[in-house]
Amino acid sequence: MSTLAEYVRSNGGRFENELFEFLRIPSISTLPDHRADMLRAAEFVSGKLAAAGLENVEVIENAAGRPLVYGDWLHARGKPTVLFYGHYDVQPVDPLELWESPPFEPTVRNGSVYARGAADDKGQFYAHVKAVEALRAMHGELPVNVKFLIEGEEEVGGEAIEAYLAANGEKLQADVALVSDTAMYAPGIPTICTALRGMVYMEWQARGAARDLHSGLYGGVAPNPLFGLIEVLAQCKDAEGRVLIPGFYDDVEAPSAKEKASWAGLPFDEAAYLRDEVGSTALTGEPGFSVFERIGARPTFEVHGLPGGFTGPGAKTVIPATAAAKVSTRLVPHQDPVKILAGIEAFVSARAPQGVAIEIREIHSAPASLADPDHPAIAKAAQALGGVWGRETVYVRSGGSIPIVGEFQKRLGIPTILMGFGLPDDGLHSPNEKFSLENFHKGILATARFLELLQA
Amino acid sequence: MSTLAEYVRSNGGRFENELFEFLRIPSISTLPDHRADMLRAAEFVSGKLAAAGLENVEVIENAAGRPLVYGDWLHARGKPTVLFYGHYDVQPVDPLELWESPPFEPTVRNGSVYARGAADDKGQFYAHVKAVEALRAMHGELPVNVKFLIEGEEEVGGEAIEAYLAANGEKLQADVALVSDTAMYAPGIPTICTALRGMVYMEWQARGAARDLHSGLYGGVAPNPLFGLIEVLAQCKDAEGRVLIPGFYDDVEAPSAKEKASWAGLPFDEAAYLRDEVGSTALTGEPGFSVFERIGARPTFEVHGLPGGFTGPGAKTVIPATAAAKVSTRLVPHQDPVKILAGIEAFVSARAPQGVAIEIREIHSAPASLADPDHPAIAKAAQALGGVWGRETVYVRSGGSIPIVGEFQKRLGIPTILMGFGLPDDGLHSPNEKFSLENFHKGILATARFLELLQA
Repeated sequence: MSTLAEYVRSNGGRFENELFEFLRIPSISTLPDHRADMLRAAEFVSGKLAAAGLENVEVIENAAGRPLVYGDWLHARGKPTVLFYGHYDVQPVDPLELWESPPFEPTVRNGSVYARGAADDKGQFYAHVKAVEALRAMHGELPVNVKFLIEGEEEVGGEAIEAYLAANGEKLQADVALVSDTAMYAPGIPTICTALRGMVYMEWQARGAARDLHSGLYGGVAPNPLFGLIEVLAQCKDAEGRVLIPGFYDDVEAPSAKEKASWAGLPFDEAAYLRDEVGSTALTGEPGFSVFERIGARPTFEVHGLPGGFTGPGAKTVIPATAAAKVSTRLVPHQDPVKILAGIEAFVSARAPQGVAIEIREIHSAPASLADPDHPAIAKAAQALGGVWGRETVYVRSGGSIPIVGEFQKRLGIPTILMGFGLPDDGLHSPNEKFSLENFHKGILATARFLELLQA
Repeated sequence: MSTLAEYVRSNGGRFENELFEFLRIPSISTLPDHRADMLRAAEFVSGKLAAAGLENVEVIENAAGRPLVYGDWLHARGKPTVLFYGHYDVQPVDPLELWESPPFEPTVRNGSVYARGAADDKGQFYAHVKAVEALRAMHGELPVNVKFLIEGEEEVGGEAIEAYLAANGEKLQADVALVSDTAMYAPGIPTICTALRGMVYMEWQARGAARDLHSGLYGGVAPNPLFGLIEVLAQCKDAEGRVLIPGFYDDVEAPSAKEKASWAGLPFDEAAYLRDEVGSTALTGEPGFSVFERIGARPTFEVHGLPGGFTGPGAKTVIPATAAAKVSTRLVPHQDPVKILAGIEAFVSARAPQGVAIEIREIHSAPASLADPDHPAIAKAAQALGGVWGRETVYVRSGGSIPIVGEFQKRLGIPTILMGFGLPDDGLHSPNEKFSLENFHKGILATARFLELLQA
């Protein structure tokens, strides 16, 4: 281990520079005009997989222009196989004016690199690539078999990887998947995440009059689709945050007593969390549930934006002909996205006000996932993390969604280890996203150590 | 009258070309980057006032860069004075993709010119300018005294004209004001509008967390200011369109029996209005009130847009730190904008959900206005219109707002004649705004005829 640690130390500057080069590619998957950047990012990844000594490296194109990248090394006869997953696509950057340095010019401040995608997920999965490079450089071979499958559609719930998994079950067969796309519980506390929430992301599209109308000449008789959406959305939750859609909570299970006990043992200062991390005047959510439960074990209903009407500076007195709402629910284990979407559709269609038609377009859906912390590979991952950070690994749930974890379970029948190197304040999806460079280097070491432990 | 009609006929092509030149200036008052266009439009107006033979023409600059334009002709000793008002500023053009021809390239189709501002208000007040030109060309002088005051802030409720009126009461003294910024009841039916609604236009600004948050990692505990706005907005109206803000209807008076009787006599096909003009599946609004009442005699509460969050194509899972709502109410005679705004502020601050702060910024306000149809000048205007169109003039209320009408009453103590040349389907504030060229020419004749009748 000491020679590997030396290799990582002596090559650390180069590893960082490679990561910065990767972060300069604005691979925003949801914006169609970044198509060329998606291809550049995929080529970057395939180049680095090959340079790390992986074989059979390929860029798997698709019609959406967001290719998958695959590579493997399968010469550890009789040893387990690890399927590494990561994503090279990133979220949009708006509001751009809130970034302290440009989102695609990686800038180091206080030991972290600031850039869109730094923690989510370029910096995290790049640590896996460098772990493979380091092990190969040290030993000429790897302790176990590895397969890398990196996608470019995680932020848009794209279907390329789903289709690829469905069609290539044998090629992708492995004993366990490893994903670093989550956060450590707190700086210095090595963490494995045992559950992720699923989601249904929708656009509710509303139509009123045939054309935009003047709110003076028609106000009082013309239906307002924006207000129609407001009326229906407001009925979806009560003032305390309970979702009012019939059947929404039917399949929700309470976390185990063991899980609740372990959460209660984590260091947590709710007042500091409110003040320093959320920064509002109050936390919200369902009464009777702890913060851990509200984030990890309860589903949500959220509105992300309402396109339509007039949103510029000043005043425009328009009753818009159309309006939309970006709406999502986060789901917990055992909730079925198909059933939840159907329940929402029935609820909305029964409540659309007179003169306003509301159609729901599903943008993407995925179920939640739940892992068994007693699984042997998860125990070894915890041991590897604990060794590098010098502290016992904790188990938490994440409120986020990584749809692929459910797919690995469903298509390949394998569990996923969620070994996060991010930090809670990394600002995923927000301005000034960052990633700790110390965690980048420790992540490389922990990944390599995990593969060594898995060999035994 | 026949020589004047001939002059208008033989110069009609030039009049149209001048109007088209005016319509090519994108004088959008609410968008700061159109500042140079505002000045160009003001210069155009002052040039044409001078060319029509008006004197003392001046462009009255202001800090906002949206000047007033003044001009007069005061040599009709012992005769009444008419104050002409119009506005050269126009509404924004979005959604641009719905325009069949570019909004600032006037295009004639089916006898109408299509362009932003064609009916609201460039084409309408330009008819006044051409009426003065024609009378001067025919007679070398005008039958009455005239003053023109043209503003560039009508669509933004700017304060330049209010301040100017307050400071120049003597200079602007007149017997009656004439405004053409409304619509005829239907094609071929000459119309005078006896009432306008007032308004309070606001931006409700909401704040939740200190920064945008990931809806997975924080969903369940972080306040969502967009949803906070939705919750409060939904409480402002009931399902049938009644405004629920306490005191909102306190000062609303029912229209007179005479007015209601005259409305009942107007040709009106509610099914055709719904199908052809509004184009939705149902009209909305308070039960127990006719369409005329809901538009002309009842106040409204409307949402025009909700800036904030993610409104692009695809999906972004953000809980925005801030969001806003563009909200207006249309007021009817006797409602006080100050009192209404205070009522809304109290209602909202009592209902902002936990963790969300909502502040109301007033963008502009104006009271409604109501005129006496038995006023002698209004009767002469009706006679002039009836003569040109060959049909008796009808009296209606408009649901729109022209704040200056209330100001003329308050500052100068004079009534305003609202002699509209627009049509109900002109698409004010909408894509494909248009103005009938027949009405442009008839409007010139009717304005000139009105000045002749007023002389007697």
